[in-house]
Amino acid sequence: METIGFIGTGNLGYPIVENLLKAGYGVSVYNRTREKALPLQQLGAVLVNSPAEAVVQGGIVMSLVSDDKAIIAIAGDALVKALGAGGIHVSMSTISPDTSRILAAHHLEEGVQYVAAPVFARPEAAAAKVGTAVISGNDAAKARIRPLLEAGFAKNIFDLGDDAGSANVLKLIGNFMIAGAIEMMAESFALAEKNKVDPRVVYEMLTTTLFASPIFRNYGAMIVDRKFTGDPSFSAALGLKDLNLVLETAARSYTPMPLAQLVQSRLTTVLAKDTKDADWIALAMGALEDAGLK
Amino acid sequence: METIGFIGTGNLGYPIVENLLKAGYGVSVYNRTREKALPLQQLGAVLVNSPAEAVVQGGIVMSLVSDDKAIIAIAGDALVKALGAGGIHVSMSTISPDTSRILAAHHLEEGVQYVAAPVFARPEAAAAKVGTAVISGNDAAKARIRPLLEAGFAKNIFDLGDDAGSANVLKLIGNFMIAGAIEMMAESFALAEKNKVDPRVVYEMLTTTLFASPIFRNYGAMIVDRKFTGDPSFSAALGLKDLNLVLETAARSYTPMPLAQLVQSRLTTVLAKDTKDADWIALAMGALEDAGLK
Repeated sequence: METIGFIGTGNLGYPIVENLLKAGYGVSVYNRTREKALPLQQLGAVLVNSPAEAVVQGGIVMSLVSDDKAIIAIAGDALVKALGAGGIHVSMSTISPDTSRILAAHHLEEGVQYVAAPVFARPEAAAAKVGTAVISGNDAAKARIRPLLEAGFAKNIFDLGDDAGSANVLKLIGNFMIAGAIEMMAESFALAEKNKVDPRVVYEMLTTTLFASPIFRNYGAMIVDRKFTGDPSFSAALGLKDLNLVLETAARSYTPMPLAQLVQSRLTTVLAKDTKDADWIALAMGALEDAGLK
Repeated sequence: METIGFIGTGNLGYPIVENLLKAGYGVSVYNRTREKALPLQQLGAVLVNSPAEAVVQGGIVMSLVSDDKAIIAIAGDALVKALGAGGIHVSMSTISPDTSRILAAHHLEEGVQYVAAPVFARPEAAAAKVGTAVISGNDAAKARIRPLLEAGFAKNIFDLGDDAGSANVLKLIGNFMIAGAIEMMAESFALAEKNKVDPRVVYEMLTTTLFASPIFRNYGAMIVDRKFTGDPSFSAALGLKDLNLVLETAARSYTPMPLAQLVQSRLTTVLAKDTKDADWIALAMGALEDAGLK
């Protein structure tokens, strides 16, 4: 089976590489902090010392890094030339749609296809291969990478067409919706508690009927249990980065989004209070603390 | 089988009375506008000319009217004395928790149990008996009325304890959550459209994965199709009344709810623009119109 390059083995990249190895793919791994990728070597991955070393001419590289700055640093001339004509870069990071469009144009100059394929999955969902992928880019390239997404993390794949930025727009919308759901529940549970109604019954009723969906079920339980810090599988800092991208994309396209502004402000407060090990679910603390609740 | 009193055969009360009749109950119906209840006579209901005439000593009366003012007008001394000791008033309207508490105390002076049992169901869901009931009040009374709720509209029943106002608090929370979901989707679909991403694909992805729940599925389709007016099964005016009750309850309990304020303001604008046949889903127009979309 083909050998794939993989750049970025953070919380989310790590289980995806594990799945690819289990599925029989060869994987050449580059991670900025080499130590974090070391256990993958035991599982059969080859660790390399630069992004360009992870790829072969005409091959496929998948990248999953923290932000626009990181992807721009990685996906420069060296990587693109090493991939060369027929090569594909599967860009899985949550980044600005415009950054994807600029990178796609740059890649194409060397005959490389850039496919945006951001990931909807917390690490445990990626490990269980029940995540969702949204993809946009060249049709032939999308067809070629589908099996990799399925082997790596995706139960569902949604195709957003050929504009590379489109999948990133949907990824930002998805994260905005999750943040909005957290705020909705936080205000609701606060109102319940302040009116002597048990938030657990409210949670149970809402998440088994009108709002019986994974987001409300999983995040709702974390709010009821005040599970805001500890071992964040999606940190408040990364969540804030995403909401900033939502507002930046909204501003550029003249789209007023008052709810997005509210949740961005909530997460800013979480970081202002210096809760470094906060999960982004901690944005729920805003509504609870504003109501005088612990 | 027992004969039940039923007060208020509006959009929601009507199909519930139909179901009760089908289930074999006798139903004495009072509706302020008598003509609207006339077709129920053909199905076996007995039409009466005042709320008190709909009840028998020690019997059960169900009420489902539009607001606090209407329930206070109906549930006065005449009704309570006609019910008498052992009687039960099942109050299904969406009203203030405090109004429920005041009525419950007043009913109890004559030995009447007041059970709050607001309805989560649009009329078509009530007709299909897939609605949800939330109930609070005296335990024995709740046990006695359960079969009526199941025969009338409810697939699920959630018990909020003995404080009459608690079920009303949860009903208000539920409606706030629905309004919040509408705002979230409206801002999201606006962002998609302004960035040349098809809102239908966004809708499909979100409502089959992260947000695969009836509220997002049903209301989301109405937003994508711009189905805001016509034959509202839940009018913007009633929706605004509910959001005003949410904010009133929030204010009394010192619970800041910025998202509730936002959606209340959105619905106020719908009514300010004089769209009299608007469904409350029309609050989605706010985010779309603010973004310059039709």
